[in-house]
Amino acid sequence: MLRYLTAGESHGQALVGILEGLPAGMPVNREGIDEDLARRQQGYGRGGRMAIEQDRIHVLSGLRGGVTLASPLAFTIENRDYQNWQQGMDPFDGDVTYRQVVHPRPGHADLPGALKYGFDDMRPILERSSARETAARVAVGSIARQMLQPFGIEAACHVISIGSVAIQHQPLTFESLTGAENSPVRCIDESAATKMMAVIDQAKAQGDSLGGVVEVRVKGLPVGLGSHVQWDRKLDARLAYALMSIQAVKGVEIGDGFEAARRPGSQVHDEIYHDKDRGIHRKTNHAGGIEGGMSNGEELVVRCGVKPIPTLMQPLQTIDMRTKEPFEAVKERSDTCAVPAAAVVAELVTLFVVAQAFLETFGRDSFKEMKRCWKPSR
Amino acid sequence: MLRYLTAGESHGQALVGILEGLPAGMPVNREGIDEDLARRQQGYGRGGRMAIEQDRIHVLSGLRGGVTLASPLAFTIENRDYQNWQQGMDPFDGDVTYRQVVHPRPGHADLPGALKYGFDDMRPILERSSARETAARVAVGSIARQMLQPFGIEAACHVISIGSVAIQHQPLTFESLTGAENSPVRCIDESAATKMMAVIDQAKAQGDSLGGVVEVRVKGLPVGLGSHVQWDRKLDARLAYALMSIQAVKGVEIGDGFEAARRPGSQVHDEIYHDKDRGIHRKTNHAGGIEGGMSNGEELVVRCGVKPIPTLMQPLQTIDMRTKEPFEAVKERSDTCAVPAAAVVAELVTLFVVAQAFLETFGRDSFKEMKRCWKPSR
Amino acid sequence: MLRYLTAGESHGQALVGILEGLPAGMPVNREGIDEDLARRQQGYGRGGRMAIEQDRIHVLSGLRGGVTLASPLAFTIENRDYQNWQQGMDPFDGDVTYRQVVHPRPGHADLPGALKYGFDDMRPILERSSARETAARVAVGSIARQMLQPFGIEAACHVISIGSVAIQHQPLTFESLTGAENSPVRCIDESAATKMMAVIDQAKAQGDSLGGVVEVRVKGLPVGLGSHVQWDRKLDARLAYALMSIQAVKGVEIGDGFEAARRPGSQVHDEIYHDKDRGIHRKTNHAGGIEGGMSNGEELVVRCGVKPIPTLMQPLQTIDMRTKEPFEAVKERSDTCAVPAAAVVAELVTLFVVAQAFLETFGRDSFKEMKRCWKPSR
Amino acid sequence: MLRYLTAGESHGQALVGILEGLPAGMPVNREGIDEDLARRQQGYGRGGRMAIEQDRIHVLSGLRGGVTLASPLAFTIENRDYQNWQQGMDPFDGDVTYRQVVHPRPGHADLPGALKYGFDDMRPILERSSARETAARVAVGSIARQMLQPFGIEAACHVISIGSVAIQHQPLTFESLTGAENSPVRCIDESAATKMMAVIDQAKAQGDSLGGVVEVRVKGLPVGLGSHVQWDRKLDARLAYALMSIQAVKGVEIGDGFEAARRPGSQVHDEIYHDKDRGIHRKTNHAGGIEGGMSNGEELVVRCGVKPIPTLMQPLQTIDMRTKEPFEAVKERSDTCAVPAAAVVAELVTLFVVAQAFLETFGRDSFKEMKRCWKPSR
Repeated sequence: MLRYLTAGESHGQALVGILEGLPAGMPVNREGIDEDLARRQQGYGRGGRMAIEQDRIHVLSGLRGGVTLASPLAFTIENRDYQNWQQGMDPFDGDVTYRQVVHPRPGHADLPGALKYGFDDMRPILERSSARETAARVAVGSIARQMLQPFGIEAACHVISIGSVAIQHQPLTFESLTGAENSPVRCIDESAATKMMAVIDQAKAQGDSLGGVVEVRVKGLPVGLGSHVQWDRKLDARLAYALMSIQAVKGVEIGDGFEAARRPGSQVHDEIYHDKDRGIHRKTNHAGGIEGGMSNGEELVVRCGVKPIPTLMQPLQTIDMRTKEPFEAVKERSDTCAVPAAAVVAELVTLFVVAQAFLETFGRDSFKEMKRCWKPSR
Repeated sequence: MLRYLTAGESHGQALVGILEGLPAGMPVNREGIDEDLARRQQGYGRGGRMAIEQDRIHVLSGLRGGVTLASPLAFTIENRDYQNWQQGMDPFDGDVTYRQVVHPRPGHADLPGALKYGFDDMRPILERSSARETAARVAVGSIARQMLQPFGIEAACHVISIGSVAIQHQPLTFESLTGAENSPVRCIDESAATKMMAVIDQAKAQGDSLGGVVEVRVKGLPVGLGSHVQWDRKLDARLAYALMSIQAVKGVEIGDGFEAARRPGSQVHDEIYHDKDRGIHRKTNHAGGIEGGMSNGEELVVRCGVKPIPTLMQPLQTIDMRTKEPFEAVKERSDTCAVPAAAVVAELVTLFVVAQAFLETFGRDSFKEMKRCWKPSR
Repeated sequence: MLRYLTAGESHGQALVGILEGLPAGMPVNREGIDEDLARRQQGYGRGGRMAIEQDRIHVLSGLRGGVTLASPLAFTIENRDYQNWQQGMDPFDGDVTYRQVVHPRPGHADLPGALKYGFDDMRPILERSSARETAARVAVGSIARQMLQPFGIEAACHVISIGSVAIQHQPLTFESLTGAENSPVRCIDESAATKMMAVIDQAKAQGDSLGGVVEVRVKGLPVGLGSHVQWDRKLDARLAYALMSIQAVKGVEIGDGFEAARRPGSQVHDEIYHDKDRGIHRKTNHAGGIEGGMSNGEELVVRCGVKPIPTLMQPLQTIDMRTKEPFEAVKERSDTCAVPAAAVVAELVTLFVVAQAFLETFGRDSFKEMKRCWKPSR
Repeated sequence: MLRYLTAGESHGQALVGILEGLPAGMPVNREGIDEDLARRQQGYGRGGRMAIEQDRIHVLSGLRGGVTLASPLAFTIENRDYQNWQQGMDPFDGDVTYRQVVHPRPGHADLPGALKYGFDDMRPILERSSARETAARVAVGSIARQMLQPFGIEAACHVISIGSVAIQHQPLTFESLTGAENSPVRCIDESAATKMMAVIDQAKAQGDSLGGVVEVRVKGLPVGLGSHVQWDRKLDARLAYALMSIQAVKGVEIGDGFEAARRPGSQVHDEIYHDKDRGIHRKTNHAGGIEGGMSNGEELVVRCGVKPIPTLMQPLQTIDMRTKEPFEAVKERSDTCAVPAAAVVAELVTLFVVAQAFLETFGRDSFKEMKRCWKPSR
């Protein structure tokens, strides 16, 4: 069983993760992880914080000479900004009256978190609910990627829309997604990308923010990850669980998703073929690679709807938690659009779920044994 | 911790469930459960099987005189059709060559299941992957409903669209959903309902099938169910997990969902107000009742995109699993549209997740103690 | 992941179990399960209930023609006594004032259960805490046995002591345990067995009860079940978890157990040898087959200390839960000694834990694939 | 749900832990944790490593100004020895040929770990299986202690025997255990303590090692922690799980434990009394505070049998993992007796289990709410 926990506040010392259940003897490459951490930090429309933090993984355990020991892999990702915040955030000596937040920001965890946990000051809530936490999940997913690569499993992500601007055509091949890596908005359609940057500029000028839709694809999945036998084992369900847990995600689709709900069955189900070269295969992929809660050998396709960042320069109405008097929510320098980053997070979160399901079906105690037994059905 | 497992094949003796973790001393009403089971079986567009099965819960343990004992509640829901199938489905004496399925049906679990589990005959897969299993989950959710009702929590569902026909206006109030109960397509908009039935008739005539979009709303949720502190505790993530696990669901949204990805932040985040009568509240509910992975005191709003039933009268291309030769997928009398049933399943599945999160925050060993401690924050 | 839940009250309709996670295509034999159920019901010193119940498994799902389908295996074991109890135990119509128990019996769950769950009547507690529940766990373990057998893994149990009477010598070989099957007290030492029956007779005459020590051995375990990497993955810990959960067990030992605490290290650790025929092996087995939380290839040896049955004919002091006045605990016809049954339960509980750990390391979706990959290290 | 993961190798940079699920607003005191870490490092019979490591907790998240934020509490405990080991243990740049261990040490995880995970060098196994890992569990348990203290729950531990030397009389009161804190062998019986130190000296002189029996008691437990309803919820089972997972523990007992198996029922079950001052209570505590898998309001009493340290100066026979030739296991400076430390570990491990069960029954999101609802039954 592959499992992990993350910890860490946005302005605390570090994000921390413990990932356990990797097979022994598996190579892990630091640069690969740092690259994914960097991918998360890029994107047109980010604010000042990104300049401060240049995330690097620091591994504390579980590896030796770049190879897994089977023991839990613990890591930290330092928050460089902590030096400016220690006064208020030190675990034992922090001044809890430092930079209190008493006006809950609409769209954030602030209000429900404060009421749930009994705080007047919402600092304790927002420090943990912040999307900065996703850096730890990116690291986890990046290690999952390194586990899957030798078995021919690759993932990519791209941005389908930002605000009202969307790409013209869905990408036809996995390979065509590589272009997204060089786009400031992680968009494979250059003309749409230009318009996306324009609406981001416009939103910024108005003190507003923008969301969008991101897509993740995974290629090379063997048949049979997940299971139909109990609701909590289904691969699509587990993907939805993980993807909906990403900050700001309000919708998750597999394959044609909501569009499949609009078309007749004759246009939705992927007919089954066989030939010598490709074995069993499909000519269409409306299902997005999952039928009956299991991978079916086709490309995995998932999409997330990401809401706009809730912190606006243009003030929203809120209250003071102590007096209950009306107030304007804090205006803060912030990102205008984090959709390209959300795409990267979705990709890595997807990879973790895939790796977990992969180990359930093809796992062994050592990487060598995994390879010996490896026999995907097709 | 509230947990459950279900078991049972579609043409086996019975569906079986064990639900564990209910507080002691809580009344459970059989009629309420049977009503929800009946709600699942209704709906315009269902085929012949629904006439055979009239689901009734049979409780084997966990209750005495209609009150919970704290011990696990086990139940069965008989499959009346089993008498016609015992020859092939008997656990020990069944003839495994009886009614084999060797042509995997596109859109079903058949192909990935058979390859994963090593069967040539897909009967073992489809018996469990069948949506008949949802009857057991409806029973579980119906008991959850009875636990939540005394705390003022109520749920309802309705159908937003079938195929290309959608309701004109989103319902404004929870109360307006009650109309759906009397609609053959579980639709609150009479004119849309008429058109929905027409497209179902048309699809049936063409041997085709239709999906749609369903919505569930939950009223009376206290603030603070779920948590922002770890990805797997978030209420929206857990709802997506459970809802995406429903057979045929390919998309899940919370609140405005994918639509929120298209609008600027200033139109998406729900401003916060306070007055004496209502306490802290919102005037809008784009978030669908969840911020930061926690219920925020507003109505919970979730939607599922349901794909068309994969079993068509109009044949789809497939192969023979033994010879790999091309073949036409089995034509079977089947439902044309199961969207109204999916709405009911989604409602009950949602209620289970809510009940589980509710117990985490407000649970006690006995129902009496739960009421003594009950103090929702607002 | 192999998992199960059980349900059922002692005088309810049936015990119920759902076991999920077995590989597909695995043969399951009904007679084998019924034999283990019968083994649990035997033993010198049992009372009248055993004559009423002759446990038989009734499988509701998960099998077809005696072969696993991968889907959850649900079963019931009927309580024949229910016909005498339905008036008081019917889930919906039972009379909750029927045969109330208001004097908590020392040594039972009665008192803590009633206070925890808010009952004055302890009937709801004792119905579930009763050792009758172990019949369901025996069924689960018996299926686990059938999964392990083809891989050469076998288990046996025997009684080491009853009250103050113990066997003279620890059995030297696994094979020597087979004799226990024919002993009324499941004891391999005939002279000790005779004395055990005598002390049981004596205890019965005095209205008293007796406990004892039971041992389970498992032969043929491959190296490497369990893991040292996290506390909750250790095989010895998981065995202790499962064994201590058996009703009346108050102590659990692995290998030399507490005796190892008394001897110097030079007499406790099992030296390591290698030769062509046996590969890596030991000449002693003080560790009981587990080092560092993992099976080491030697025989697994676990022991449980079982306390005497708490229900005595010789009354114990207690109180009335409503008035708090002193009272004598109910005298009931009951077993005098259930140690031989406890041995069987311990054996089957052990087999479940072993099967779960076995699947983690050597599991595959189908039994056929499991055999293909099977390559134990030695 | 209170949960944690630990990570860290014995000669790696640090032990790491993430503890999640503490209520918000709870004070945590650093000195208290460091004291428990120091208690673990004391004890007559420890070797040189203890002089190198002076464990201190370093909290990275989850606290601010000494108060819990509800977010996960992450911490490290530095391995000072790492500076001497970085060359061989660096996660990415470590030389994996550095200080290889190719002769598996009997009694350690070395052999099964190497075979399971596919290593010839046993360094990767022993680094994680080392009892140094218990420092992280002590930190976790120490935080649990701080959560329980305000509810009147206190724990203590003491050493009952070392090798063949045992205390004369079981301690009668919880208070009498405090004396153990000042004993070099954590023994409350001064005369036995003197003899224990003598046998440790003797064992050391002979290059041998000693185990022993330790006891933990917890005072002030409310009735009803744990549950009888399912095997995995029983408090005694969960304690056995956690305690048996401690390195070197081979036996676990609750209350009279194995001794209860030898006595008749009339001498084992604790009669129930009531008076105005003490409410419901017992005059004896053979059950060790647990009946039916639940705390019964009496003192919790658990004991562990700890085997002697496997690393001896007096060589044990083993093999070379590459050549399979016979070899003598490494002689290393090591502890002669770690029983007093094991007592401390057992105490803290017990406290974690108690805290987890306590939160299940009496937990709330905030410490303040926990206190508002707190109403133990008696």
